[in-house]
Amino acid sequence: MAGSRMKLELSKVVQGRCRLGQLKEIGRMGQHSLDIPGCLLYTHLGTVPHLTQDTLHTLSSLPTVTQVTLSNIAEHQEVLDEFKGGFKTFAGLHDTVLYCSLHDSAAHRPTGHTTNKTVSVWGSGGRIELTVAKFMALQRMVQPDWYQAMADGETWQTGTSRKRVRKSVDRSLAHLDECLLVHQKSQELDGVSVFGVVEGGDILEERLCSARETAKRPVAGFCLDGFQTGAMDQALRSQLIAAVTEELPEDKPRLLQGVGRPDEVLACVEAGVDLFEGFFPFQATERGCALCFRFDVTPDPESAVADEGRHAAGETQPNGDLNCDDQTHMTRFEMDLKDKRHQDDFRPLVEGCGCYCCRNHQRAYVHHLLVTNELLAGVLLMMHNTSHYHSFFRAVREALANDKMDLLRRRVLGTLTE
Amino acid sequence: MAGSRMKLELSKVVQGRCRLGQLKEIGRMGQHSLDIPGCLLYTHLGTVPHLTQDTLHTLSSLPTVTQVTLSNIAEHQEVLDEFKGGFKTFAGLHDTVLYCSLHDSAAHRPTGHTTNKTVSVWGSGGRIELTVAKFMALQRMVQPDWYQAMADGETWQTGTSRKRVRKSVDRSLAHLDECLLVHQKSQELDGVSVFGVVEGGDILEERLCSARETAKRPVAGFCLDGFQTGAMDQALRSQLIAAVTEELPEDKPRLLQGVGRPDEVLACVEAGVDLFEGFFPFQATERGCALCFRFDVTPDPESAVADEGRHAAGETQPNGDLNCDDQTHMTRFEMDLKDKRHQDDFRPLVEGCGCYCCRNHQRAYVHHLLVTNELLAGVLLMMHNTSHYHSFFRAVREALANDKMDLLRRRVLGTLTE
Repeated sequence: MAGSRMKLELSKVVQGRCRLGQLKEIGRMGQHSLDIPGCLLYTHLGTVPHLTQDTLHTLSSLPTVTQVTLSNIAEHQEVLDEFKGGFKTFAGLHDTVLYCSLHDSAAHRPTGHTTNKTVSVWGSGGRIELTVAKFMALQRMVQPDWYQAMADGETWQTGTSRKRVRKSVDRSLAHLDECLLVHQKSQELDGVSVFGVVEGGDILEERLCSARETAKRPVAGFCLDGFQTGAMDQALRSQLIAAVTEELPEDKPRLLQGVGRPDEVLACVEAGVDLFEGFFPFQATERGCALCFRFDVTPDPESAVADEGRHAAGETQPNGDLNCDDQTHMTRFEMDLKDKRHQDDFRPLVEGCGCYCCRNHQRAYVHHLLVTNELLAGVLLMMHNTSHYHSFFRAVREALANDKMDLLRRRVLGTLTE
Repeated sequence: MAGSRMKLELSKVVQGRCRLGQLKEIGRMGQHSLDIPGCLLYTHLGTVPHLTQDTLHTLSSLPTVTQVTLSNIAEHQEVLDEFKGGFKTFAGLHDTVLYCSLHDSAAHRPTGHTTNKTVSVWGSGGRIELTVAKFMALQRMVQPDWYQAMADGETWQTGTSRKRVRKSVDRSLAHLDECLLVHQKSQELDGVSVFGVVEGGDILEERLCSARETAKRPVAGFCLDGFQTGAMDQALRSQLIAAVTEELPEDKPRLLQGVGRPDEVLACVEAGVDLFEGFFPFQATERGCALCFRFDVTPDPESAVADEGRHAAGETQPNGDLNCDDQTHMTRFEMDLKDKRHQDDFRPLVEGCGCYCCRNHQRAYVHHLLVTNELLAGVLLMMHNTSHYHSFFRAVREALANDKMDLLRRRVLGTLTE
């Protein structure tokens, strides 16, 4: 099997579906593990936007898996080919597991460029069309520990016809088979894990078919594609994911693409998702916002102030949590630090937060950096948001372990009062 | 005297003019010192652009004095007034001396808005007109350790009439007297140092008059204004500065505004300048360039590679070192990392450089971050450029101490071959 090393150990399964455990022996050298439910580290070209490795590692709760996307990397093929050492060395990454996905969930992705034999990714220089041969040549060059197989994921626009959805399922399976064939012949990819991609849009039968067929292939795990925020509401997403995960083997991880909002994360964990992409803190940072939702499940008088901040944010942006296609709108899980009401607020972003930004600076200062377009604003926000988001995932695991998911959900949604 | 604490100890004076020494007991608490010739730390609102305090302090050779400019701060008066703790606390600065200048030498400054009683500064929200009263209210609020008195510096455009130049000298002296009057009555500014501003454009008599008159006032030191890169050529600048410093007391420091190019810095040190502003590494960073000029005066086979890089940069930008008004053009002291020839260059920016960027990344990687507009590019370049530039100043002091200024000049200009 491609990537036979990765092992999933479940320590608890709640309601037959919601899983707590550990993904072991990930990475080609088998030296890393990742707790699930978990989140990957979001990067551009291997770097967390705004942050150096040193700055990043001042934060706690960081995941051991770094995600890069082929859309970022594809246009640098020539140089990486010449460099030969693989992407981890090129980007100066140490001691991390590299996961390579096809698309960047935080970037706009035009549709209508998929053919029977190709998918397209968009880099800063425009569209790059990938055949399986080119896709696999890139993987041999990137030398990730783990990658998503090539897939046709263009079924997330509402009103996609059943015929088009079925075509995406069929094409994705054909791409997967081709990828695995090349993979098995590539010595450079020995020990590298492949995730198959489950497609099927919003059509239950297609989802089930895609899941069953993908599960028959020798993959290390599954990407659940086409469920991204904006593509469907959470009720339908939960229903489809629950049905899909029922068809998947229990001992392999399921990675959900394109979903990052805390409320949706919780619902998807309960539907059977193990892994998420970490783009949400980046999106909040780019809109000048600080994540401030609470995820403490034990009463703590100190963190009551953070709650205050969140409610205040909610007041000024009552529609912030509506689904929207472009995912660039503020959600109710963050506060807009560009807002004038923060200009004389001398509290940290989140009281009690141990990140560098909250230990050293106040909302008023970050507000002033933002309104004067200072470059440090993004650095500070990215530090806080990354720290806050990954701490949330730790809280999810703790809540699962201690049977407090219900409490956590109410805390995150802000319906818990005490 | 305003700011009586600051003490200049000269350890060596070369050719009656070029000074090596230490500025002691700077800072209100008198706990800091600064080696001269020296350079201030350039910041926006107290932060080095792109860098957190933590990131910054991974660099060596950093100066103990942080420069902020009223043009950045003035529009935040309301909040700082409410905050009360002074700018250092507001910006999370610790253990540094805060110097507050009027303008930002790296920012565009429109002319034609000066009156007999006011000067204007430009923040992100537009023009702010300052009377001495408002200027001093800002200083009381900022609570710097050291500030530049208000001055009319609009004489740097070629062809400014002698009448206008004389007016600027007279106004600046009047502003200084008014500032000192308010200063002496302000308990909040007790122990804070004031620098008088020497104006006079390119007219020798006016320069001498401005220097003599300013020297009569109880100031802690002198700002030399109107000499910025683009305003005049170095021969005239050197001649005027030498004449001006002749008129200034030996025991007080001279800070030159608006000059940052290494070749000009060396010439100005030789003309009698003690202190410089540190905006040059920021300008190089913003244009996607890495400082790579050499300043080693002992033969070192390893750094020969850096020399190579510099020469290559010079080849593609032969006019990079011409004086130009906007100061945004590449100089021959840097390499353009956006240039395609760096795409497969797997060397560090400067061989042997100990900064975070050079220890961890290659030119090819920074090139790729730049062409894909990655936010980390500015962070990495700013780290290297800041480190390189302040190490250059350390090399200037060492060359002065060891009678190797001539060797250093030739090394910096690239005319030394071995």
